[in-house]
Amino acid sequence: MHAMEQGSVQEHGRSRKLSKIWVINEYVRVGLAETLSTYVMMVFGLGSVAQVVTGLGAFGEYLSVNLGFGLGVTMGVHIGGRVSGAHMNAAVSFSMCLFGRLGWRMLPVYILSQLIGSFLAAGTIYSLYYDAIYHYCGGNLTVSGPKATAGIFATYPAPYLSLHAGFLDQVIGTAMLLLCLMALSDQRNQPAPSGGEPIVVGLLVLLIGVSLGSNSGYAINPSRDLGPRIFTAIAGWGPEVFRAGNGWWWVPVLAPLVGGVTGASVYKVFVELHHPSPCEHRRELEDEAEEAAVPLDMQKNLGPEVCV
Amino acid sequence: MHAMEQGSVQEHGRSRKLSKIWVINEYVRVGLAETLSTYVMMVFGLGSVAQVVTGLGAFGEYLSVNLGFGLGVTMGVHIGGRVSGAHMNAAVSFSMCLFGRLGWRMLPVYILSQLIGSFLAAGTIYSLYYDAIYHYCGGNLTVSGPKATAGIFATYPAPYLSLHAGFLDQVIGTAMLLLCLMALSDQRNQPAPSGGEPIVVGLLVLLIGVSLGSNSGYAINPSRDLGPRIFTAIAGWGPEVFRAGNGWWWVPVLAPLVGGVTGASVYKVFVELHHPSPCEHRRELEDEAEEAAVPLDMQKNLGPEVCV
Amino acid sequence: MHAMEQGSVQEHGRSRKLSKIWVINEYVRVGLAETLSTYVMMVFGLGSVAQVVTGLGAFGEYLSVNLGFGLGVTMGVHIGGRVSGAHMNAAVSFSMCLFGRLGWRMLPVYILSQLIGSFLAAGTIYSLYYDAIYHYCGGNLTVSGPKATAGIFATYPAPYLSLHAGFLDQVIGTAMLLLCLMALSDQRNQPAPSGGEPIVVGLLVLLIGVSLGSNSGYAINPSRDLGPRIFTAIAGWGPEVFRAGNGWWWVPVLAPLVGGVTGASVYKVFVELHHPSPCEHRRELEDEAEEAAVPLDMQKNLGPEVCV
Amino acid sequence: MHAMEQGSVQEHGRSRKLSKIWVINEYVRVGLAETLSTYVMMVFGLGSVAQVVTGLGAFGEYLSVNLGFGLGVTMGVHIGGRVSGAHMNAAVSFSMCLFGRLGWRMLPVYILSQLIGSFLAAGTIYSLYYDAIYHYCGGNLTVSGPKATAGIFATYPAPYLSLHAGFLDQVIGTAMLLLCLMALSDQRNQPAPSGGEPIVVGLLVLLIGVSLGSNSGYAINPSRDLGPRIFTAIAGWGPEVFRAGNGWWWVPVLAPLVGGVTGASVYKVFVELHHPSPCEHRRELEDEAEEAAVPLDMQKNLGPEVCV
Repeated sequence: MHAMEQGSVQEHGRSRKLSKIWVINEYVRVGLAETLSTYVMMVFGLGSVAQVVTGLGAFGEYLSVNLGFGLGVTMGVHIGGRVSGAHMNAAVSFSMCLFGRLGWRMLPVYILSQLIGSFLAAGTIYSLYYDAIYHYCGGNLTVSGPKATAGIFATYPAPYLSLHAGFLDQVIGTAMLLLCLMALSDQRNQPAPSGGEPIVVGLLVLLIGVSLGSNSGYAINPSRDLGPRIFTAIAGWGPEVFRAGNGWWWVPVLAPLVGGVTGASVYKVFVELHHPSPCEHRRELEDEAEEAAVPLDMQKNLGPEVCV
Repeated sequence: MHAMEQGSVQEHGRSRKLSKIWVINEYVRVGLAETLSTYVMMVFGLGSVAQVVTGLGAFGEYLSVNLGFGLGVTMGVHIGGRVSGAHMNAAVSFSMCLFGRLGWRMLPVYILSQLIGSFLAAGTIYSLYYDAIYHYCGGNLTVSGPKATAGIFATYPAPYLSLHAGFLDQVIGTAMLLLCLMALSDQRNQPAPSGGEPIVVGLLVLLIGVSLGSNSGYAINPSRDLGPRIFTAIAGWGPEVFRAGNGWWWVPVLAPLVGGVTGASVYKVFVELHHPSPCEHRRELEDEAEEAAVPLDMQKNLGPEVCV
Repeated sequence: MHAMEQGSVQEHGRSRKLSKIWVINEYVRVGLAETLSTYVMMVFGLGSVAQVVTGLGAFGEYLSVNLGFGLGVTMGVHIGGRVSGAHMNAAVSFSMCLFGRLGWRMLPVYILSQLIGSFLAAGTIYSLYYDAIYHYCGGNLTVSGPKATAGIFATYPAPYLSLHAGFLDQVIGTAMLLLCLMALSDQRNQPAPSGGEPIVVGLLVLLIGVSLGSNSGYAINPSRDLGPRIFTAIAGWGPEVFRAGNGWWWVPVLAPLVGGVTGASVYKVFVELHHPSPCEHRRELEDEAEEAAVPLDMQKNLGPEVCV
Repeated sequence: MHAMEQGSVQEHGRSRKLSKIWVINEYVRVGLAETLSTYVMMVFGLGSVAQVVTGLGAFGEYLSVNLGFGLGVTMGVHIGGRVSGAHMNAAVSFSMCLFGRLGWRMLPVYILSQLIGSFLAAGTIYSLYYDAIYHYCGGNLTVSGPKATAGIFATYPAPYLSLHAGFLDQVIGTAMLLLCLMALSDQRNQPAPSGGEPIVVGLLVLLIGVSLGSNSGYAINPSRDLGPRIFTAIAGWGPEVFRAGNGWWWVPVLAPLVGGVTGASVYKVFVELHHPSPCEHRRELEDEAEEAAVPLDMQKNLGPEVCV
């Protein structure tokens, strides 16, 4: 994703000794964009769950939720894209920092913005589907049981899932996410088509829902899960939202951080480290160009670096 | 959307003191394109509802309706795209006028064209599914009840929905639409890929259906709702179409106007206002280009403005 | 569609007085490509129906058929794209001839190739699903009744549909197809993105299935319907395939020809005729470019014509 | 697919007499990328089957499996794209060798990497869905019967399918795959849009699932089927996985090799062989350019070859 280079903007800013005001402005600018993009993703995502749960089969099924979060991510990336990078996920921001693509001091701005965005989205969906939720559960807001509605907002594990299996579930889900995001933004491999990144990233999230979702609802994102969970604790579901599933709440907060770094590292070890250096790459292409008609699009991998 | 710049054509026309005939021609040209694009969107959209309702589960389900309206919008944008901008929605046209992207005196042309287009589409679907509708309801055209068919044409709220909750529903739905449309057309952010705008806008409408549709059928568009409602009043469902749902009919007419402006404003406040000025932006990019291999596609954000 | 310009290749050939051999070669070249692209579309399309019918709900539902024909068209366009134009539909070829985009003497080549392709595809699907069909219907190949299987290959109307309503159904369905195809190939409007034509055309066919399919199975294509119907007459379903539905078979053969021309004409009357002439268009763009930063992609509409 | 040209890199390497170390490095580089891309495809693909089987209808249906494998292929192509070409399928690698697009001595590297990748993916999905599988089948791992779970990992034929019909099924399925892949990578026809190859190839696999999947689960890929089958033999399902379906296991191993070559040959015979030579093609385009405004994108088919 183009989004991943954003951190460096702040770095350049510092190195050019810009005034403190400029830095604060940058915080505000990035923070607002990240808040809005997370908000948009979450309104669409949570909305699709609310509709499926309260619609009793007449307004979509599990695939609708996959579409809601998948395309919700697409729209979120369009909202914050070239401003904040639209991480919308603390595990993404954390990995970007670890791999040097985002300055560590931007991390709190990202996480706070994401939590605010997802909390506000939970509030919006609660207002929007207030009548529907009350009609569905008869006004009895529960976390488990046949008419449970807390799952509209935060994720809960399947009854059969042990806590350590759930941790593994979140690690693997987030690892697959970051592994693919690394490939999609790797300009020396087969990246997402320019301009089409938001759609491809959305399809990736849809895919994770279709393949890795039934164990625990594929949070794979601390920001997506914690904000709405806090909202439900306040809005009427009470402290049970933190106790349910054997105290499940911390799993989608911690495990994605582990998984994100794991997935990104796997991509680096299996693919990125083995890319030929730019000069080797240029020479290879030139050789090919001599022997055959080289398609023009292969040349766009060539950076302006000087090779001798 | 590219579509959004269309209003200015008329403005330029005026400033160049073109003859009145030219202006009238422009009205006709834009009006015909807007009529046809709304017609196409609505034939596909209403057709999908008719098929699901009369098909009794054998010809698609709720998701088909989302696809029908989503891809219907895609085709509508291809039809009117570079002529009228293919708003197909009075709330979009109204917001464009408010934000100076469309001349106010074009507004009646747009709204009238949209209403004619959606009215004719309702007539087309009525003719096309005449046998199916009569077979389904036994010739008894009703607005509510188990064999109600008025919902094929216009939207009606869920039984549990209060009128003010429905108003909020339409405000939020349209706000999400305009918020995202603003981002998709913002060339200084991450806009829809050039040429792919119709598909991304279609996916956005599909997404709204998947996430924000169960309360009242996601009209989010006065033109989509009022034209077919008037058609049903004439074609046999009678004045009940205006009385049903506690006099629901005016909600999808007024609320989207409020919501559209709200959503567009939110995008402006959270993102657009904070874009660096073009000169700042150019300088930033040049700095980056010095330090690293700058991808070519980042340069297309640069306007020809003179920066010193 | 790019595909639509193909006819002129043959015209140029003639005007350059190429030898008869060259012309025959061209017939073979175009005919083979058109046969293979129709074959591919039909194998995927008919395969999806066979799977849904014999799968008893476990292998997809109506939406699968829409995907099968929609994406089947996408692949068909990739197969024949720049050779024959991949019409895969006699109504498309006929309209192209009428509007001067294909030489009339190529029409028999197209129609024959399409019929051969769809006949062979029916044979392929019959062989491939032979066991499944016999398992499903107990070896009794019928055209109607609870275990009817003729509908896997050709279309039949719903029981409630009168013949003239069915004719209208096929006229409108094909009109919507051609209307949109005209827009998708109109370079002075908002055409399908370059390279993405096969996908957008596939989505259009998917959309027609989602919206206009329940009356009679959306043949909207004489070649798609007649070839497989002849195959079933031979392969064991007998002459009943021509008698069923009140002698339905000729409707999807004739009505699409009427509908195709109608739809293309509507687009011409509502949009294409009102495009400013290229010179006007160039001047407009230049004026805009003076007043504001003109996006580069707007300039690609300019032909090399001399404007003074 | 761009991917298909990868083999030549190795050829060039040899012709430039690079040291043995360079060659071994190339083996490692390609092998690791191919392993990871197959692994990613298979985790998503098998994950979707596991979710549908153990989810009892609440977490997707057959279409989810089509999406899981289709989009899984998309992500796999992004992972290995410009390094190994991301064949992820021994039938693809074998056809590429036969048609001279991949050196034969690379074939073992590809097949081994693919088998390792799919074996590891089966292990990952087994760990991830361990609790779900045991909850679903009560700990009794069976290959057939109402609670069979071996089908999560490898394919098994429908009960009605004879072995030779199954062989034909796999031949035709793989033939359609390779036939379309040939078209998608044919730069002188209508190839997949540059950068969008992974998505179009994913849609192709989705389409095969939607149309040609119910007979035997559309393996169409020895690497996809054999690796997970070996895993299940070891992990608790025992030797029955090789005996089931009348000794089915070798069909998806051998038949796809036959089918792949058949499909690619059909494309060559029907389309590729008849392309005009580049010089003819250039002359044709120049003629057209003289007579009409030639769209710029038609010129990109022209190679740098000298035509006189």
